[in-house]
Amino acid sequence: MTETEIRSAISQAVKDVREKNPMAPSITNTVTQDFVANAQLAVGGSAAMLYLADECESIAKIAPAFYINMGTAMPFYAETLPKAVQALQSNQTPWTLDPVGIGLSSLRTDILRQFKNFKPSIVRGNASEIIALAKLWGLIEDSGGQVRGVDSTEKVSSAKAAAIALAKFTGRAVAVSGEEDFVTDGKEEILCAGGSELFTKITGSGCALGGVMAIYLTAASPFIAALTATTMFNQAGTKAAAEVSTPASFKVHFLDSLYSLTADDVANNFRVVGSMETMFDFFG
Amino acid sequence: MTETEIRSAISQAVKDVREKNPMAPSITNTVTQDFVANAQLAVGGSAAMLYLADECESIAKIAPAFYINMGTAMPFYAETLPKAVQALQSNQTPWTLDPVGIGLSSLRTDILRQFKNFKPSIVRGNASEIIALAKLWGLIEDSGGQVRGVDSTEKVSSAKAAAIALAKFTGRAVAVSGEEDFVTDGKEEILCAGGSELFTKITGSGCALGGVMAIYLTAASPFIAALTATTMFNQAGTKAAAEVSTPASFKVHFLDSLYSLTADDVANNFRVVGSMETMFDFFG
Amino acid sequence: MTETEIRSAISQAVKDVREKNPMAPSITNTVTQDFVANAQLAVGGSAAMLYLADECESIAKIAPAFYINMGTAMPFYAETLPKAVQALQSNQTPWTLDPVGIGLSSLRTDILRQFKNFKPSIVRGNASEIIALAKLWGLIEDSGGQVRGVDSTEKVSSAKAAAIALAKFTGRAVAVSGEEDFVTDGKEEILCAGGSELFTKITGSGCALGGVMAIYLTAASPFIAALTATTMFNQAGTKAAAEVSTPASFKVHFLDSLYSLTADDVANNFRVVGSMETMFDFFG
Repeated sequence: MTETEIRSAISQAVKDVREKNPMAPSITNTVTQDFVANAQLAVGGSAAMLYLADECESIAKIAPAFYINMGTAMPFYAETLPKAVQALQSNQTPWTLDPVGIGLSSLRTDILRQFKNFKPSIVRGNASEIIALAKLWGLIEDSGGQVRGVDSTEKVSSAKAAAIALAKFTGRAVAVSGEEDFVTDGKEEILCAGGSELFTKITGSGCALGGVMAIYLTAASPFIAALTATTMFNQAGTKAAAEVSTPASFKVHFLDSLYSLTADDVANNFRVVGSMETMFDFFG
Repeated sequence: MTETEIRSAISQAVKDVREKNPMAPSITNTVTQDFVANAQLAVGGSAAMLYLADECESIAKIAPAFYINMGTAMPFYAETLPKAVQALQSNQTPWTLDPVGIGLSSLRTDILRQFKNFKPSIVRGNASEIIALAKLWGLIEDSGGQVRGVDSTEKVSSAKAAAIALAKFTGRAVAVSGEEDFVTDGKEEILCAGGSELFTKITGSGCALGGVMAIYLTAASPFIAALTATTMFNQAGTKAAAEVSTPASFKVHFLDSLYSLTADDVANNFRVVGSMETMFDFFG
Repeated sequence: MTETEIRSAISQAVKDVREKNPMAPSITNTVTQDFVANAQLAVGGSAAMLYLADECESIAKIAPAFYINMGTAMPFYAETLPKAVQALQSNQTPWTLDPVGIGLSSLRTDILRQFKNFKPSIVRGNASEIIALAKLWGLIEDSGGQVRGVDSTEKVSSAKAAAIALAKFTGRAVAVSGEEDFVTDGKEEILCAGGSELFTKITGSGCALGGVMAIYLTAASPFIAALTATTMFNQAGTKAAAEVSTPASFKVHFLDSLYSLTADDVANNFRVVGSMETMFDFFG
């Protein structure tokens, strides 16, 4: 895709969602559900969070996209998650996977191992999570190392190979979030700039980003959906951090900015940095 | 009731709650618990959210009112909800039912069908939910049609017959929330105006409204409780939307306004619109 | 400890947490998880909320501290909580216990009775909860009386004997939150002033305080950790209430203030009141 094609696809995705108010239901952690739902609504989408296996199955059949975040697994997730993902695949419903807490328990590991067969449309995580998932799926060498619950202990750049391996395997998109954000479909590799350090001082911006990616899956390819949500978060975060410098106010301004961004803003201010070797001529 | 009697009863309910700080415990969805609790506190009430069947039974015996919202059903709700409702009836504790997600699963349908025998003091929902519940309880003809999870796909006016049928059946009150809000006890029919389009851009205002209705059930009849909460939300929403135009700021200003409204404000600014045929001479 | 030693220890704890970004995972209620996590992040810590027994066991082994709040018990807590606490003890991981809802059900009572053998580093609660726990553990005489769910019906001063009895038993610290806050390790007894009446108009400030105490357990003794979190909440609450006078804005300003307080602020503005007999010469 050329730069112009990417900008145009992003603009179209933003517009479509604002017009159609699509719902991307979620199985997601209890800590950040409010933030995820409000972010989904702010960009023009609609939200519903679910726990029951049969409800996830039935809504996966009619929803245009889905979001799965394993942040606060409960015992019944052992039934809910596999059934939901099975239904998503049967209905070819696109979905975003956020492998939060990968490695914390055998329940999570078992479920995430099963997910290998169900190729999520987008895998979104911090560097540690992306590396851990690529190892779990046997796509990169497991040289040991630890994952620290929900926080990243790795730089985004360190997850590049893992992200590309995952994207090549799924044939869809992978997004690594951090100070900069790396988005790839296994061929294109884009490193996005923007955002704010204040994202690390509030809880759930990663979850909200995953939930918004699922909203854009209703209107664009996985790669464009991941890119659209990523650049919107970066732009809204930059704007909010220019207005306030403390975390709770930042969260309010961030959501407000997410709501106010126009399709033109998003597409025109989409910024790429070229610090990775594969980027040198991307927008050259 | 005359207009003067209604305004006086609303004023009294607002005052009583601010004086007595009554608690209305909830079984409610995990997404919006924070919003529900903060709205209940803002009007002067107190909050507690519960999941365990025996805790709901024991608190239903001592609480002056209760709120049940089925938004994010979990497997153990199959035991918790029927036991809670049984205890509420045994103790004649008034309660508000929010039939969110009606039709999504057999668990929800089974429980909501059982609730027919336990006549909630207030049923609050959007138009789609009210219509679906009236159909499930066999009170209006089921001509098919779909309910879309948590969002309304119907206009408030389309739920008028369903709301009246439900209210006649329970002998209590029903509130349909939307761009305008319809409140009925089966005899009186009031359509309230106000609020803001921004309510649709934040998650949980319907849940918060149901939770606040439960607070007013401690101080007024179901009809007055539903009316008081509805007009407070409309007034606070109108005020907030006059101050800010983006959703996250709107939510903060809305809760602040809910806290600041006086009993006189609420009773005097209570606005009714007469666009439905039965309204023509209501406040004439 | 002298006043100077206490101020110095508080200052050090604030600095250490901002530098090291320690994680205190939680088993905590679903209503206020967002507030707890954001408060933990605002002071420089890191958050993770968990439900599964084996996850709690494995994270208790590596986390530097832990927070347990029983606000919204779910059926599987019967397994999760005892296993978590067992793992905390085996690994000598310090933890804060918030006995919310004590007395509401046999599940809570059974679990809290078991906790007597596992001596929490800090017990934090309102006066009613502290009295109820001291009675449940047989440390003070049970003359009857009621606990009202999550709200305190008792004055802080009425819980003084219970708090001291609990602290003598655990050999660690107990904090009673209310209009004033009492912190004791069984020997030192400090009554802190500050805060704002607005804390009672938002949900979860007690939970957030408990969660932040757990963060400071990674950097200080239980007594200093409880004192540091208490004075930070009082100072940030006073500051926020000087800026705004409505609850939702207060919550935003409070979290922002928590983030902005420096170690010097916290240590120098640490205010003690001497209204209890044991206090007369504390800072004399």
